[in-house]
Amino acid sequence: MSFQSFDDPAGGGDHAARLAALRAHMAAEDLAAVIVPRADAHQGEYVADADARLAWLTGFTGSAGFAIITMDRAGVFIDGRYRVQVRDQIDLRHMQPVPWPETRPSAWLREVLPQGGRVGFDPWLHTRREIEGMEEALADSAIALHGLDRNPVDAVWPDRPALPAGAARIHPDDLAGETAAQKRARLAAELKAAGQAAALLSLPDSISWLLNIRGSDLPKNPVVQSFAVLSDRGTLSLFADASKFDADLRAHLGDDVTILPADALAAALTDLEGPVRLDPATAPEAAFRILEAAGTAVARGPDPAILPKARKNAAEMAGMRAAHLRDGVAMVRMLSWLSRQTPEDLTEIDLVRRLEDFRREAGVIDISFDTIMGAGPNGAIVHYRVSELTNRRLAAGDVLLIDSGGQYPDGTTDITRTLAMGDPRPEAVAPYTAVLRGMIALSQALFPQGVTGAHLDALARQFLWQQGWDYDHGTGHGVGAALCVHEGPARISRASDVVLEAGMILSNEPGYYREGSFGIRIENLVAVTEVDAEPGRRMLGFETLTLCPIDRALLNADALSATETAWLDAYHRRVEDALAPHLSGDDRDWLARACRPLRQG
Amino acid sequence: MSFQSFDDPAGGGDHAARLAALRAHMAAEDLAAVIVPRADAHQGEYVADADARLAWLTGFTGSAGFAIITMDRAGVFIDGRYRVQVRDQIDLRHMQPVPWPETRPSAWLREVLPQGGRVGFDPWLHTRREIEGMEEALADSAIALHGLDRNPVDAVWPDRPALPAGAARIHPDDLAGETAAQKRARLAAELKAAGQAAALLSLPDSISWLLNIRGSDLPKNPVVQSFAVLSDRGTLSLFADASKFDADLRAHLGDDVTILPADALAAALTDLEGPVRLDPATAPEAAFRILEAAGTAVARGPDPAILPKARKNAAEMAGMRAAHLRDGVAMVRMLSWLSRQTPEDLTEIDLVRRLEDFRREAGVIDISFDTIMGAGPNGAIVHYRVSELTNRRLAAGDVLLIDSGGQYPDGTTDITRTLAMGDPRPEAVAPYTAVLRGMIALSQALFPQGVTGAHLDALARQFLWQQGWDYDHGTGHGVGAALCVHEGPARISRASDVVLEAGMILSNEPGYYREGSFGIRIENLVAVTEVDAEPGRRMLGFETLTLCPIDRALLNADALSATETAWLDAYHRRVEDALAPHLSGDDRDWLARACRPLRQG
Repeated sequence: MSFQSFDDPAGGGDHAARLAALRAHMAAEDLAAVIVPRADAHQGEYVADADARLAWLTGFTGSAGFAIITMDRAGVFIDGRYRVQVRDQIDLRHMQPVPWPETRPSAWLREVLPQGGRVGFDPWLHTRREIEGMEEALADSAIALHGLDRNPVDAVWPDRPALPAGAARIHPDDLAGETAAQKRARLAAELKAAGQAAALLSLPDSISWLLNIRGSDLPKNPVVQSFAVLSDRGTLSLFADASKFDADLRAHLGDDVTILPADALAAALTDLEGPVRLDPATAPEAAFRILEAAGTAVARGPDPAILPKARKNAAEMAGMRAAHLRDGVAMVRMLSWLSRQTPEDLTEIDLVRRLEDFRREAGVIDISFDTIMGAGPNGAIVHYRVSELTNRRLAAGDVLLIDSGGQYPDGTTDITRTLAMGDPRPEAVAPYTAVLRGMIALSQALFPQGVTGAHLDALARQFLWQQGWDYDHGTGHGVGAALCVHEGPARISRASDVVLEAGMILSNEPGYYREGSFGIRIENLVAVTEVDAEPGRRMLGFETLTLCPIDRALLNADALSATETAWLDAYHRRVEDALAPHLSGDDRDWLARACRPLRQG
Repeated sequence: MSFQSFDDPAGGGDHAARLAALRAHMAAEDLAAVIVPRADAHQGEYVADADARLAWLTGFTGSAGFAIITMDRAGVFIDGRYRVQVRDQIDLRHMQPVPWPETRPSAWLREVLPQGGRVGFDPWLHTRREIEGMEEALADSAIALHGLDRNPVDAVWPDRPALPAGAARIHPDDLAGETAAQKRARLAAELKAAGQAAALLSLPDSISWLLNIRGSDLPKNPVVQSFAVLSDRGTLSLFADASKFDADLRAHLGDDVTILPADALAAALTDLEGPVRLDPATAPEAAFRILEAAGTAVARGPDPAILPKARKNAAEMAGMRAAHLRDGVAMVRMLSWLSRQTPEDLTEIDLVRRLEDFRREAGVIDISFDTIMGAGPNGAIVHYRVSELTNRRLAAGDVLLIDSGGQYPDGTTDITRTLAMGDPRPEAVAPYTAVLRGMIALSQALFPQGVTGAHLDALARQFLWQQGWDYDHGTGHGVGAALCVHEGPARISRASDVVLEAGMILSNEPGYYREGSFGIRIENLVAVTEVDAEPGRRMLGFETLTLCPIDRALLNADALSATETAWLDAYHRRVEDALAPHLSGDDRDWLARACRPLRQG
């Protein structure tokens, strides 16, 4: 079985009947509307089948969005990435796509419910920040948000799948670099210093990091779906299906960690002494309501694991480097093999499968996200995921964008390379060169302590901007260490206000997209490191983790400055030195050619 | 008389006696402490002598800071720029410098008033935002802020000077590009659309811009000190000393503008219908209190002139270009003259005077700020202002930093050049080159609509950062058109969240400072302009306004990229073409040499 599926993502099912069932339930409950989000209670990027309520109800399978259902309308709110996909997936006779965030749900509700009414929502599936924002936007209307005791979709979903109970495994201390007990003590001390008796953790990656465990509940993200309450004494209650944990894992968790059923959380919250820290950006609205109803003081504050998890220690860095070495070998075998193929013999799906095979041979546990294998015009779709319906046969002259990554026992990878199949397309050369120069500028940037990703984003875009071009996505996201490939809180983005700190790992992935024609993206992962500075200053820089040659068929090498050329040559020297011992034959020869200095042509 | 004074800025006076008089007043008023800010009611950079309460009371004359006086303590709060100056100016037997913002006034008050008490302040001299912040920080203490009806310093200042009543003048419509009536109508329409009946304007530059008038109340800033209330019908009440306005100016203001005495403002606010827009960041706390006491609705919002004033129109741009042409001639005459002098014959004050003379001959009305003429180690003091006490005689090998500007009838200038006197200091070459490369990078940056100064700041610093260097000031400030040389709201700074828009004028002034040795800064003014972009994008760039050669004695031209060299050569070509027709003899020859292409050496 392959990690990636190529089914047309639109699921089957009689959505009209499902909407009718939901509306009957709404009528019985006196609800003028209900909100059906894509999110589960953990606000993660992936949801279990049991939590795929939006897809079940509407057919829309994108990674973000929500629906609002009234008695006569069904709005499916989707962002710019999904404008096309949503129209293919939902039944337009019964549902309407709504462009979001351009259309605020509050504005839509005011229009479709001029008479007002109760709008039901499941308080477990929304954060407090979301609900506060919507309540504020509806403050002077006759529309009232109403938190439901039972999820309205679950009420009408007869064959709803069971929640996953994938086996958890121990993440060894030598990879974690700090025992779970040390982590709990460190975070508990922080709670104590802040005068907080406990904190709720609702993000599975925070809990998995804190307890040095990994899970198999979801594809691509090796987390244990769970909630946890950490006390200021360092003891922890873990709310998750007990069947996930075998005896070894229970021993690893130790006596200070108590495993309780997931449905025991509400009662446990009721019994807590305050103040209890909740993160309004991530914790469920339901948790706030339970504590408030019990008269327990709530302290708003960030998930206490968010920043510690983002600051990778030396052991985590070593694991990430080791994973990138193996991933680099897989990538080079793929690119070397591809260089010997005839484009017309291959489809995007063939390439995804082949790359998965090379990664399996490199020891991958899973892929870290669905591979984006975008040939020609498909490369211009930023979040493209090939299906049997869209699968493109390669053609000479295609620009091919490959964005992929692996979950290894010791690290998580995410790499993008863009290749020319056959003769390079002349119109792709200038954008490719500008993208690469931006990637290099960020790679070699040094910057003082205090800088955020918002302050560095322009370095990666400057050469595109010079030509009136840009890309409509962030330059980089945080990456977990053998955890989620998209990890908060730091980003390289104009919208990021998180200070970059040593140990943070981020992607560096500028791009360029010409609709209907081709897409270009070049991505390495980088780690923030301390560097030398004049007295009185603390400077930081980036260490590049990704090890894989950067294709030069689309590069105008004459446009590179001496510094940029030196960076690229040094990078390729390092890549060859690291990977060559693990390759042989054609692959090793290909690597040597791919890593030759620029000036040698 | 010269524009700039070289007196030791510490004023005379028996500060111990003044503090004693203030404390007697405090005892009579049952005040445990009073706050004495440097600011006046208009929160400007310059204050009139009558408003120089902090200087009168403490002797400290810096442009920012405040004092808090208790019965036994007198803390003078100053930021990093004034750590040295404050110790020279205040009597350390009776007053204590307090590093600010490291020490918050609330924290200091909690320490010196453990028993609590009433802390008096003049609500006209603080913004609502300031008072809210301090009240929040003192919320759980026994210390209570108490707004005073009469300023406590004025109560004990027997010979307090009169408020200035400098003559106002008309700023002609052909320079303003829009009549005052049009501006009033435009802003009134915005108030009406927001459902606001009126707005208070408390910033003299906003009022001077809105009414197309200029003033002579303060040095360097050609504003009319005043308040104004603009109604949603476009009528305006101007609160200012009537003697500032002659018959022509009254005619220019027209029937829709009513001049009222400054002390009529409080009563006029009481009579207003609401909602009244007040800017919590700039409007006096007193205005909020008066409206709240009258039961009038307050709408928080930005000063309605802030953004319209910052977006210069074509006529304002033309005026700024014309002023920069004349200022460039003055600067070239200065630099040309200086090139023929023997350093040891000259002091910093000689140079300031000489530069003023050239500017007067170019038609300047005033300088736009005290010239920073920093030779050798004085150049490393970022806000250096030469006095008879610090005046340095130039020496061969000195790095000389000249930061200066003029107020012309049609525009405001601000330029910095850094020169080598005699043989260049080798250790200054690398920093000078890095500073210039950063200045060029920002000058030629293109960027999409939506970008703020925070997103571009790194472009100017990147080459310094590469060597572990930085500068501890912003990269650029907004500049008014024949108005204040420091104008909000846009800046090039990591802290700026104002979106850059076409027509905004900013300085571009990276620097490098080696304490005890030398300072480097290179500054041009730039205007944001629209440029071409691919379909669907709006891109902006900068037009450089400043016209003056950039010295190359300290430049390592080999370190410049081809693009940077091309920028510098093109800039010099443009400077020579523009200025040569207005120069003759030695000056014209000097200009030609200073503007020769780089590759010719």
